[in-house]
Amino acid sequence: MQQAYLRYYPQLKPGLGAVSSLIDERINVHYDSLEPALRQMADHGGKFLRPAFFLLFAGLTSPQFSEDQIKAAASIEILHMATLIHDDIIDDSPKRRGAASIQAAFGKDVAVYAGDYLFTVFFDLITETMTNSRFLTVNARIMKRILNGELGQMSDRYRLDQPLLNYLRNVNGKTAALFSLAAEEGAYFGGADHRVIIAAKRIGQNIGIAFQMLDDILDYTGHRLNKPILKDLATGVYSLPLLMVLADHRAELAPYLEKQAAMTTADIKAVQSLVVEFGGVTRAQELAAKFTAKAEQQLAALPASPARDALEKLVAQLLKRTK
Amino acid sequence: MQQAYLRYYPQLKPGLGAVSSLIDERINVHYDSLEPALRQMADHGGKFLRPAFFLLFAGLTSPQFSEDQIKAAASIEILHMATLIHDDIIDDSPKRRGAASIQAAFGKDVAVYAGDYLFTVFFDLITETMTNSRFLTVNARIMKRILNGELGQMSDRYRLDQPLLNYLRNVNGKTAALFSLAAEEGAYFGGADHRVIIAAKRIGQNIGIAFQMLDDILDYTGHRLNKPILKDLATGVYSLPLLMVLADHRAELAPYLEKQAAMTTADIKAVQSLVVEFGGVTRAQELAAKFTAKAEQQLAALPASPARDALEKLVAQLLKRTK
Repeated sequence: MQQAYLRYYPQLKPGLGAVSSLIDERINVHYDSLEPALRQMADHGGKFLRPAFFLLFAGLTSPQFSEDQIKAAASIEILHMATLIHDDIIDDSPKRRGAASIQAAFGKDVAVYAGDYLFTVFFDLITETMTNSRFLTVNARIMKRILNGELGQMSDRYRLDQPLLNYLRNVNGKTAALFSLAAEEGAYFGGADHRVIIAAKRIGQNIGIAFQMLDDILDYTGHRLNKPILKDLATGVYSLPLLMVLADHRAELAPYLEKQAAMTTADIKAVQSLVVEFGGVTRAQELAAKFTAKAEQQLAALPASPARDALEKLVAQLLKRTK
Repeated sequence: MQQAYLRYYPQLKPGLGAVSSLIDERINVHYDSLEPALRQMADHGGKFLRPAFFLLFAGLTSPQFSEDQIKAAASIEILHMATLIHDDIIDDSPKRRGAASIQAAFGKDVAVYAGDYLFTVFFDLITETMTNSRFLTVNARIMKRILNGELGQMSDRYRLDQPLLNYLRNVNGKTAALFSLAAEEGAYFGGADHRVIIAAKRIGQNIGIAFQMLDDILDYTGHRLNKPILKDLATGVYSLPLLMVLADHRAELAPYLEKQAAMTTADIKAVQSLVVEFGGVTRAQELAAKFTAKAEQQLAALPASPARDALEKLVAQLLKRTK
């Protein structure tokens, strides 16, 4: 796990450790084909951002983490892992979390079942913890929203006339839905009152949108380890900086984009430069900053607590990063 | 739908019609890529055997079908469809229900999301109907059992020394689990007493096992429309008739089987003949007949009703068919 953010809130460490142990325990399957695939995914456990948000929102009102909180936080990470595995099949992604993706390392067959298996683990965890709350229904709806975000993105591939609204809708589904769920469930399982739960849900959504926008912006500006720069372009996924200028500069950009999967590295770099030159990155940063500011403002309105301070620091670090 | 069995119990027709309409309604997605794929799957709606068993078991005690019963029956068919779609990716199946499989017609990418989408529909339906019962947990367990059956089968591919027990375990998961669920949930949602619900679960399991065995037997004996004869052999899936004789006749069979994916049609026909000659089909039929007899005996012990008569006729038709 790469959890540099733990320095803001070291109290989170045992909670995230418990989430990680629970995930390890639940992915303990007995089939040669699947076990190493799931194990690899768990070992390169990413940043655990969603469980961290869950636990921080729970920490607003809850002095320590209960077993149900750990399970619910794990359910979100498990659902996230399942969707990543299936998305990598669709995108033919060679890499994930700095290692070979499951589909690249173990084949698409194993990847299909590995994702399905994680759906069943997710399902187990939420039936164990949420049967008596409205969150079963919320989770069902979120699962559908995530998938709709992915489907929307797939459906808009290579479309030069796609409205910015579609991008926002897709981001809202594929990324913000899960951040929003983590925040809302965290507040709920921490025992927060109704007003805070509603606020948490909105804060999570704004964080998620800003987080995805920043991720897309960094494709155009950053030098990132282990991430092919702008590979998305050749697969037809056009993100915020490009969409910010595509309508006004279609004549200049279309000749490259219309090559679709045949775009060369030189083509991709040309698009990257043009997008920067036309102001796409700056405009995308301005839009992302609005969602970040909104999240910060909403956070500031929550009752003061060490967990809130930690949330503010985490949001600042996460949404103002440059790589 | 090919529901010749409706002649035994015409009262089932409106119920199955309602299940079919509900499925149509729920798979109404707005993405160009997915809609036709799901629509095709629904239009070639198969035999609706699982909803039929659900409704017949419900009919033991329930004079008419409630909305919850229809939803629960549909949830089982939806889960079945989801697993079929993902299995066809793994098996590279060109056909399903007499038409091109989703993965063949629309690509593996669409098939991954189509299956996932159906999981979310399944999840919706059970949270709408089962939140206050133990069946959420039961469904979570069944989903895992189905997947474990598929994984077990994948894991045993091409293994010449696989124990018969593995076959039984895999069949129990990949087929019997869902028949058992349909029967148990049907009895429960029909309002049957505890004793009948327990009996239904066991009856469903025996029917499921016998059903899968018969299916595997017909690969060796039947002339089936739209189904490539014994295609499973070349993909390394060895079923009951072969496993019945493989240990005793390994010397004769191994030379063909060891060619694995390179088996020709002639090789497959040779294995088919040898399995019949060595008595594999007869022995498989004897074993299947035991599960059928058990199911019939358990059915006969249920309180008499028109639904029970219909179940007996359906089981007889289904488990004694020759194609």
